Amino acid sequence: MTSTVTPSAISTEEIFAAHAGGKLSVETTLPLDSARALSIAYTPGVAQVSRAIAAEPALAATHTWASRLVAVVSDGTAVLGLGNIGAAASLPVMEGKSALFKTFGGLNSIPLVLETTDVDEIIETLVRLRPSFGAVNLEDISAPRCFELEQRLIEALDCPVMHDDQHGTAIVVLAALTNAARVTGKDFTTLRVVISGAGAAGVACANILLEAGIHDVVVLDSRGILSTGRELEGIKADLAERTNPRNLEGGVADAMAGADVFVGVSSGTVPEDVLASMAPEPIIFALSNPDPEIHPEVAARYAAVVATGRSDFPNQINNVLAFPGIFRGALDSGARRITSAMKVAAAGAIADLVGSDLAADHIVPSPLDPRVAPAVAAAVGAAAQTS
Amino acid sequence: MTSTVTPSAISTEEIFAAHAGGKLSVETTLPLDSARALSIAYTPGVAQVSRAIAAEPALAATHTWASRLVAVVSDGTAVLGLGNIGAAASLPVMEGKSALFKTFGGLNSIPLVLETTDVDEIIETLVRLRPSFGAVNLEDISAPRCFELEQRLIEALDCPVMHDDQHGTAIVVLAALTNAARVTGKDFTTLRVVISGAGAAGVACANILLEAGIHDVVVLDSRGILSTGRELEGIKADLAERTNPRNLEGGVADAMAGADVFVGVSSGTVPEDVLASMAPEPIIFALSNPDPEIHPEVAARYAAVVATGRSDFPNQINNVLAFPGIFRGALDSGARRITSAMKVAAAGAIADLVGSDLAADHIVPSPLDPRVAPAVAAAVGAAAQTS
Repeated sequence: MTSTVTPSAISTEEIFAAHAGGKLSVETTLPLDSARALSIAYTPGVAQVSRAIAAEPALAATHTWASRLVAVVSDGTAVLGLGNIGAAASLPVMEGKSALFKTFGGLNSIPLVLETTDVDEIIETLVRLRPSFGAVNLEDISAPRCFELEQRLIEALDCPVMHDDQHGTAIVVLAALTNAARVTGKDFTTLRVVISGAGAAGVACANILLEAGIHDVVVLDSRGILSTGRELEGIKADLAERTNPRNLEGGVADAMAGADVFVGVSSGTVPEDVLASMAPEPIIFALSNPDPEIHPEVAARYAAVVATGRSDFPNQINNVLAFPGIFRGALDSGARRITSAMKVAAAGAIADLVGSDLAADHIVPSPLDPRVAPAVAAAVGAAAQTS
Repeated sequence: MTSTVTPSAISTEEIFAAHAGGKLSVETTLPLDSARALSIAYTPGVAQVSRAIAAEPALAATHTWASRLVAVVSDGTAVLGLGNIGAAASLPVMEGKSALFKTFGGLNSIPLVLETTDVDEIIETLVRLRPSFGAVNLEDISAPRCFELEQRLIEALDCPVMHDDQHGTAIVVLAALTNAARVTGKDFTTLRVVISGAGAAGVACANILLEAGIHDVVVLDSRGILSTGRELEGIKADLAERTNPRNLEGGVADAMAGADVFVGVSSGTVPEDVLASMAPEPIIFALSNPDPEIHPEVAARYAAVVATGRSDFPNQINNVLAFPGIFRGALDSGARRITSAMKVAAAGAIADLVGSDLAADHIVPSPLDPRVAPAVAAAVGAAAQTS
């Protein structure tokens, strides 16, 4: 989910001017302004460092930038809400992501966009480039390819790999739902949750909510409730097995009757009468951008807590609350994988940061809150140590 | 060729401290310090730019960083004088190279080191990554693979590609030789030139000197003079056809008798009596690092002009005089290839910058001279327009 503003506030000219020449710059950590500086950073001095790494490969982690460099990788197949617009057109988004990694996580990051959509080729390419980076943030890669790609990359690379469209969203949803339950006084684990959307975000939301202890999760794709009675394959068949404990069948109205929570991560819409059928004081996260599944003003008529992906309404569910701190924590702790426990810990840190400011219209911190990434990094690092 | 200093001047501790954490940093061109700034650089504003590029691909060149980003690419097979030490160990050198691109050329640059030495795989990898960068500086790739790799990459990528170990060295050698001829009053095109070494630098030096109008070039590999009488293949067979017009055979002594110029780009040594057999007022470029083929103090007893790769002697032949300006000029002018004419123009600009300071111990500018890269870029850009 991503931030948005009233379109009239920012002109197209201003946006294009800010993108002219790109949004990233590579700088040197030490000035190369003397023969002595050149001799240290380049030849002949650099030969000592290269020779040392050749003899002791672990030194690459401490004496090059690569081990803490996040590659933001995309094939441009599912860019924002724009769909499959290709690698080159995805680049402004990836540059923005790299800028966010530096701004909030203090991490160097480079966009690597790929002119192939073949999962085998993407994996092969990153394996060949392995010494060039220290972590991979997969971005804007279409479902269901994204699930296989992430899983196989985690196996193929001995470094943190995370598809942010899945897990970044899921982590912030878990944080928000944790606090929404606190605000409404609902018991977290017995919440009945409906997730509309079985793409990258929907699948990851279902998984993290199950991981966090919620039992009654019902997921819908465009054809209705995922149930074992349907002919499904792959990740959807798997989800049907692990969710929907009351064996519901049908559409959104069937799922929503008596539900405590609606999480919208599709581009569908939900009729108003369906909202009326939810449990008392329901929680509605309508996260589609720029058009939420339910307009927040309509949702507010029925719900105790409303969140969206938009910055012009309260409770913005924004991935930037999660990914900079997650990668920072994983890299700080030397973790080779980003585990479920680390993701759940990240959500807990985000939720807890709200502290005494907790209110129905303030269940997550501001995306600009500088305390968030360090707190997430610390929680993720601690979870990495225990797991 | 690379700079060097008296080893005692800089401690190992100082070198390793300067490399801790790496030598590069990715920064944002605009601060992301407000909701408004986020909405411009990231969502929702960025979607306008991505959509525009999808509709009009040429906008990627002006509204992302990629079109002016130099990928410094290595497989770690011929790193400095250290040999095949692998991709990870080559990274400090590549970071240094990227730092030089920014410092002298004002260009963003990222190291991409590859855990494959297969030419097909390297090409395939860079083709897949094509939208991520705007030019490729190949670095420290072993001969003769480097010749095939560069040639095939030039065909496969529609952007400037240059193997610096070949052409960077050759361009600076041509610049230095141009001025050495001026200093000694020798006619440039009738110079008799001996090149010791038929690797990346030797082959490129031979080619650029032929391109610049010198007819009598003799190249030696470790077995002696390249001649049509020898059983040679590939680039050496080709060079034997195009060089050695007097059909010399034998070793370095046979080549050097009566020669005006010696260019050493091997790690061999040259006996002193051979120097005595050269033409009057010879020119000696002993460029091996850290140990020149002929010690510059010995060379000075025989030669009118002596150059080395070392920063602790006069006339340092340093690639940094060439590559930042070459890539800058190629990118500024929108050139898709770095042609021979552009390389010769770069050498001319380097030579001409010495101007009235020209002397036997000052045939090339200082590597730190900030006028060099802009002058080279202008000359390269002008040559790109005419070719």
